[in-house]
Amino acid sequence: MDEFKFIDSIKQSYYRQSSVIKGIGDDCAVIREGYHDIITAVDTMVDEVHFSRETMSTYDIGYRVLAANISDIAAMGAWPTSYMISIVIPDEYTDEELQSIYQGMDDLARGYDMDLIGGDTVTGKQLVISVTIHGIVPKGKARYRSAMEAGDILFVTGTLGDSSAGLDLLLGRIEASDGVDYLTARHRQPTPRVHFSHQLTHLDRLALNDVSDGISSEAHELAQASNKTVYIDDEQVPINPYLKQFCLEKQTYYKYSGGEDFELIGSVAPQHMRELKNIANQQGLLLTIIGEIKDQPNTNGNVFLRKSGIITPLEKRGYTHKNEG
Amino acid sequence: MDEFKFIDSIKQSYYRQSSVIKGIGDDCAVIREGYHDIITAVDTMVDEVHFSRETMSTYDIGYRVLAANISDIAAMGAWPTSYMISIVIPDEYTDEELQSIYQGMDDLARGYDMDLIGGDTVTGKQLVISVTIHGIVPKGKARYRSAMEAGDILFVTGTLGDSSAGLDLLLGRIEASDGVDYLTARHRQPTPRVHFSHQLTHLDRLALNDVSDGISSEAHELAQASNKTVYIDDEQVPINPYLKQFCLEKQTYYKYSGGEDFELIGSVAPQHMRELKNIANQQGLLLTIIGEIKDQPNTNGNVFLRKSGIITPLEKRGYTHKNEG
Repeated sequence: MDEFKFIDSIKQSYYRQSSVIKGIGDDCAVIREGYHDIITAVDTMVDEVHFSRETMSTYDIGYRVLAANISDIAAMGAWPTSYMISIVIPDEYTDEELQSIYQGMDDLARGYDMDLIGGDTVTGKQLVISVTIHGIVPKGKARYRSAMEAGDILFVTGTLGDSSAGLDLLLGRIEASDGVDYLTARHRQPTPRVHFSHQLTHLDRLALNDVSDGISSEAHELAQASNKTVYIDDEQVPINPYLKQFCLEKQTYYKYSGGEDFELIGSVAPQHMRELKNIANQQGLLLTIIGEIKDQPNTNGNVFLRKSGIITPLEKRGYTHKNEG
Repeated sequence: MDEFKFIDSIKQSYYRQSSVIKGIGDDCAVIREGYHDIITAVDTMVDEVHFSRETMSTYDIGYRVLAANISDIAAMGAWPTSYMISIVIPDEYTDEELQSIYQGMDDLARGYDMDLIGGDTVTGKQLVISVTIHGIVPKGKARYRSAMEAGDILFVTGTLGDSSAGLDLLLGRIEASDGVDYLTARHRQPTPRVHFSHQLTHLDRLALNDVSDGISSEAHELAQASNKTVYIDDEQVPINPYLKQFCLEKQTYYKYSGGEDFELIGSVAPQHMRELKNIANQQGLLLTIIGEIKDQPNTNGNVFLRKSGIITPLEKRGYTHKNEG
């Protein structure tokens, strides 16, 4: 496809955000945000590393790449407003396939009134999609991993491990008698939890992280950034009933190390927990208390699992070492 | 290299811009800009497509990728403030090579007090570097390609074609008796014209574009965005004396189609030209009047070359067609 025709084909006819002063069509885009802090991140996905055409349509690839970025914005307690796409596209891709990648992104973006404001399309050996995202949050209200305090309650949204179970199903690594469509859809088109964290702007303090690498990894990031000790109650960690058909070893792996659920894990002061529950209920979102935060200088930065009265350290990659507690 | 160690190694010990509320270390970076418009763009370069390890060190690759992005900010009349790097790195790259890519960027960034505020490092088959850049400009002062008016004077900074002559020298496509070091350096470490356009903020009107694809292409973008007719006086287009050792055909190619000089082309009202000259002189920057802008409904969007009294259309790719004027 001619590059200029292609840019015309993906260019929005109008911009949904009034803050977009200039979108596609000049050297740069221009954004005006007087009353908000601007949140930004870049996330890159590579064919055969982060996704596979064997398990995803080009539409799903676009959808999922943008969902991962929107999830980063949700984990900052912000609202996504615009994005730019840099794509390296191999010769063997057809115009229709290229278009459908953008279609997958646009269908997701539309739901948040986000605008595509720029990008770059170049040729190369391997499909690489890099998304730069912008969001906004009221001044000083960005939510950091470092905000945990002793006595805080640890919570998580949704259920954990659905996406990696879905991926294993798509790759034929496991078989299921039930829930195949649900689990594979959670892998292909995950839902970033923007609406939930956006409703928490009024809270003075909230620590947040999104579950991109599994909760053991995310809980470690929170513990380290906050310099606190995180305790997780194994029995409380929510998994979907569909996961119970797999062996216990798999269940544990999905629950703690299963990446790309794009749920939120975080902590708040105990007195705010009821409010969080109410907001989640209003949105039909499962919210589960899974542990607590302590300040123990000798163990700060670490995560422990409590199970049947036994406390074991949880490794960053989700393994537990029985005799080191 | 361990990913966390690597991120630590490239993380700045402090941020140069007070607008950077949060840099590397959470899900997103946070920027606060109450009094400026924010300018942003993404630019991607792929090994063997946009650069070659045959002709560039990894340090130069980093330097040049960021220079290209900074040039986009210069072409908006803005000041660059921060950047994020997404890099796809093949296994065969050593830690030292990876570090030197970042070193090339940081050495350039430091000169503008820019901050590295985020990014993503992933593995893949081919080196891909995608830079997202942010800059600032006083509200409403972003410079667009669409700002040309009839009677404006067309100008260009620096000399044209140096970078592509430098590339041809590096590839052994041409030979030179003189200027090899200068021309190859212009290819490897071009200078974005940030200081020049930044000094023009007080002007009411200014059309600007940076020379990434050769001035024939950039002049067309200006003519089309402004819906005006651009006339270029061939004899005025500045080339470096070193280029005069090559055959006339090569000279013409470098002058009109030689990309990646990252000079600025633009137009202002005639009464501002003396001021532009003064500012360029103070910076030791060559500034040359190369033509003018007219409003001719039948030819608007087109570029014409005037040479020895003959007017010929200039094609977007730099070719002229003699009998079509």
